[in-house]
Amino acid sequence: MISLLIKNAWLLTMKGKNAGFVENGAVAIDGDQILDVGTTKELESRWNARKTIDATGKAVLPGLIDAHIHTGMGLYRGVAQDMNNWLQKGVGPFFNNITGEEAAAGSMLNILEGIKAGTTTFCDYDYPMTLIVENHHRIGVRARLASTVNELPSDLHRIKVGEVYPLDESSGRNKLKEATRLMDEWHGKGNGRITCILGPQGADMMSRNLLLEMKDMAENYDTKLHMHVAQGDRETGQMMKRFGMRTIEYLDSIGYLDERLMAVHLTDAEENEVKLLAEKGASMIHCPGSIGLIDGIVPPVMAFMDAGGNAAIGSDQAPGNNCSNMFNEMKSAAVFNKIKAADPTVMPAEKVLRMATIEAAKAIGLEKEVGSLEAGKKADLIIINMKEPGLSPVILESVNNIIPNLVYAARGHEVETSIINGDIVMENRQVKTVNEEEVVNQAQSAAEALSGRIKKQQ
Amino acid sequence: MISLLIKNAWLLTMKGKNAGFVENGAVAIDGDQILDVGTTKELESRWNARKTIDATGKAVLPGLIDAHIHTGMGLYRGVAQDMNNWLQKGVGPFFNNITGEEAAAGSMLNILEGIKAGTTTFCDYDYPMTLIVENHHRIGVRARLASTVNELPSDLHRIKVGEVYPLDESSGRNKLKEATRLMDEWHGKGNGRITCILGPQGADMMSRNLLLEMKDMAENYDTKLHMHVAQGDRETGQMMKRFGMRTIEYLDSIGYLDERLMAVHLTDAEENEVKLLAEKGASMIHCPGSIGLIDGIVPPVMAFMDAGGNAAIGSDQAPGNNCSNMFNEMKSAAVFNKIKAADPTVMPAEKVLRMATIEAAKAIGLEKEVGSLEAGKKADLIIINMKEPGLSPVILESVNNIIPNLVYAARGHEVETSIINGDIVMENRQVKTVNEEEVVNQAQSAAEALSGRIKKQQ
Repeated sequence: MISLLIKNAWLLTMKGKNAGFVENGAVAIDGDQILDVGTTKELESRWNARKTIDATGKAVLPGLIDAHIHTGMGLYRGVAQDMNNWLQKGVGPFFNNITGEEAAAGSMLNILEGIKAGTTTFCDYDYPMTLIVENHHRIGVRARLASTVNELPSDLHRIKVGEVYPLDESSGRNKLKEATRLMDEWHGKGNGRITCILGPQGADMMSRNLLLEMKDMAENYDTKLHMHVAQGDRETGQMMKRFGMRTIEYLDSIGYLDERLMAVHLTDAEENEVKLLAEKGASMIHCPGSIGLIDGIVPPVMAFMDAGGNAAIGSDQAPGNNCSNMFNEMKSAAVFNKIKAADPTVMPAEKVLRMATIEAAKAIGLEKEVGSLEAGKKADLIIINMKEPGLSPVILESVNNIIPNLVYAARGHEVETSIINGDIVMENRQVKTVNEEEVVNQAQSAAEALSGRIKKQQ
Repeated sequence: MISLLIKNAWLLTMKGKNAGFVENGAVAIDGDQILDVGTTKELESRWNARKTIDATGKAVLPGLIDAHIHTGMGLYRGVAQDMNNWLQKGVGPFFNNITGEEAAAGSMLNILEGIKAGTTTFCDYDYPMTLIVENHHRIGVRARLASTVNELPSDLHRIKVGEVYPLDESSGRNKLKEATRLMDEWHGKGNGRITCILGPQGADMMSRNLLLEMKDMAENYDTKLHMHVAQGDRETGQMMKRFGMRTIEYLDSIGYLDERLMAVHLTDAEENEVKLLAEKGASMIHCPGSIGLIDGIVPPVMAFMDAGGNAAIGSDQAPGNNCSNMFNEMKSAAVFNKIKAADPTVMPAEKVLRMATIEAAKAIGLEKEVGSLEAGKKADLIIINMKEPGLSPVILESVNNIIPNLVYAARGHEVETSIINGDIVMENRQVKTVNEEEVVNQAQSAAEALSGRIKKQQ
C-alpha cells in the first residue's frame, strides 16, 4: 500500500527534451518519493494507495523552482518602484532599519506567497539566513539556502552614489561564520528538504581573498556558489575602480568560472562574457521581472542559452519585481526576450517552463532530486485547475494549448494543491502547515513598526 | 435610505490629476449611481444604507476598463503562440471554422475571466456582435460595443501571405447592416449599461467609400469609431500596395483623424504619426500584452502620451495575449515601456492605473459615466483584498505602497467584489448572474467541437 496516487491528470513530466506530456496520466508516491509515472490505466493496475487524488480537469507538473529569491525583503513590497538608484534610495531606508525578526516575518509572507503560486523549491539568498531557515523548515518547502557574505560596512547608506565602498574585513568574517553555522546546523534537515550552499554576495562587495576562501570552502563542501554577477552598472563601476577589471574578466582571472557557479542577473554582462560563462559550465539565474522593473533591462539570457548554457529563473525580491510568483517570471522571461529580439518565435512557452523546472534543477544542483516527475525523484509536484475561467478551454486536438496557457495565461492562483517531499503542503488553496492569516498579520505588524521608525527619521 | 454604503476602505477615487487616495474612505451608492465619496466618518454621518460593506483591509477603486477586446476569440486561448504570421497560421484555422454560437460561448468565458480580474467595462470589438451582446447584457457588465465591419471575403485563408486581399463589397454591406442593427436594437439597453459605437476593422480591410460612409454614420449617431490603426507590417504592406500610403497618412487625407477615433494598436506607427494623432485629438488604445507576445513590439504609446494624447489599455484577445486581465495589461504597459526606454522611471504605476480607469473612460467616451469614484457617476467599482499574501503588507508611512502593489503585484484574483451600475455582480469571488461552471463547460464543449472539425481538415 503506497501513500498517494494522483490520477486522470494532464501530466507534464518534464522528462526528456520536451515537456513529457501524458494525456491521462498518473503519479504514484510513497513517502517522500515518486515510485512510478505513467498512464492512469497502467498505474491503477500496479498500485494500491491509502489516498487517491482525482485530477480530472487538472494539470500536474513538477513543483516550480524559484532559483533566486531574497525572502528577507518580503516586507518591502512596493517601496522602491519607478525610480533610479533603487538600492540606495528606495530599499536603503528599509534595509538599514529592519531587525532580524522583522526580516523573518517578511520572509514567511514571501514564502507563503510563493507556495500559493506553485513554487516548491526556494533558492533563498539572504541574511540573517540562520533565522529565515526556520520559516522554510516550518512551512515545509524545499529550500536551497545561502547565507549571504560580504564585507560591506553597516553604515553603507552614508556612502555617496558612485563612491567606492570601503570594505570591512571583520564584517566579512562574521558573515562567513554565519554561513558556516548555517551549513553545519541545517544542511540535510527536514528529511533532506533543507540544503545549504554558499553565497558570496558579489565580487564588488568583498576582497579577492575572501572570495577565494569561499571558493575553497565550496570545493571542500562539494557545493554550489550562488552569487550576484555583473548585476548592473553600479557593480561594474565598483569593479573597475577597485580591481580595474569588469566582473566576469576578474572572476575568470581568479578561477571562479566553473560548474559550481550560479551566476545571478548578468544584467551588465556582454554577449562574449556570457558565452564564456556558458563554456566554462557556470549556470545563469535570470530574473526578468526584477531587472525589467528596476533597470528597464533584459539580461542576455538568450545569448547564454544559445552558447549552450543552463539557465534557471528567479523572482529576486519584493521591492524590485514586487511579486514572488514563477508564473510572472515565466511569462516575463518569454515576452521580454521576444521584445528584446523583436521576434515572437524566441523563448517559446515550453522552454521557459523547463527553465522553471528541470533546467532550474540542473542549474542549482538538485537535478537528481527534483525538476521532473520520474521514478526515484522526490515527490515535489503541483496540481493546477485548468477549469478556471482564465485557463479554459483545454484544447488537445489540432494543437495542444496546455503549455502556452500555463505560461501565458496562468496567474498562480490556479495552483490548487502542492506536494513537497511527499507531503501535501497546500490542499485546495489552503496551506496546511501555518495559519495563513497569522502570517499576513505578523508581516503587517512588522511592516508598520519598521515604516514607523523610518518615518521618524524623515 | 440609500441602497449601499461601502466603508473603511483604502480608496483610490482616481479623481483629479493623481489617484485621489483617501485613507479611511467610503462610497455611498443609491440605485445605479454614486451619491457621495469621502471619509467613513463623513459618510456615516450623512447616510443610512440598506446594505453596508465593511472594506477594512481592502482597496476600493473604479472598475477597470478593458478598452479593446475581441471576446468572440475566447475559445482560441493558447492556439497561436510563439509563431510568425500569427493571424494566418495560428488563428486562421479556428477563425475560419468557428460558428456564431461557438464564438458566443467563448465570449461568455472571456467576459467571466475579465470580471474575475476586476474589469467592469468591456469595449468589445467583434463579430457577430448581435449574438455576443446578449452575454454582456445577461452577465451584467458595462459594455461599449462595436460590430466589426470589413470587406474581407470569406475565403481569406486562401490568400497567400503578402498578397493584396480582394475586397468584397457585399460582405461589407452585410456587416454594416449588422452594425446598424446592433446600434438600433441595443444602444442604451440594460439600464444604460450597453452602449454601441462603430467599428471599421481597419483601413486595409475596406474601401475608402465604406470607411467614409462609416465616418458619416459616426457623425449622425454622434459616436466613436473604434478601429485598428497601423496594427503591423502586414497592414502597412496592404496599405502601400492598395493606396500607396501608410495608414495614418491615408486616414489624415480622408479626414479621419479627430476625437471620434479610438486608434487601436499603432504597432507600426512612427513617432511623428502618433504625434499627429495626439494633436488631432484621437485617442490611442494600447494593448501591450498582445502586441508584445504576437510581434515582440512595444507600440509608441509613450510618444503618443508625451504629445498630449489620451491613451487607454486593452487585453485584445485570448490567442495573442492569452489572458483578459487588466492587471496583466497594467504591469505590461509599465514594464515593457521601461524596457523600451531602458529607463525604470517611465510609465510609473499611477500613470498606468489611470490608463485602466479615468484615462480609459475619456478615451472611449464614457468619462461622464465611469472611470472615477465621484458623486453623479455610475456605481462601477471593485473591492480588492489587500490581505492576500501577494499584496501584503500595506505600508502608509514613509512611502505608500498601495498603488505600486496594485499595478506590479496584483494578479487579478485579489478582486473580491465587483459592483456594476449599482448591482453586485461578483461577491466574494462568486459571479452571481451566471453559473460559472456552466460557462466554463459550455466553452469547453464548443472548443472540442471546433478543434475536432479542424483536426479532420489537417
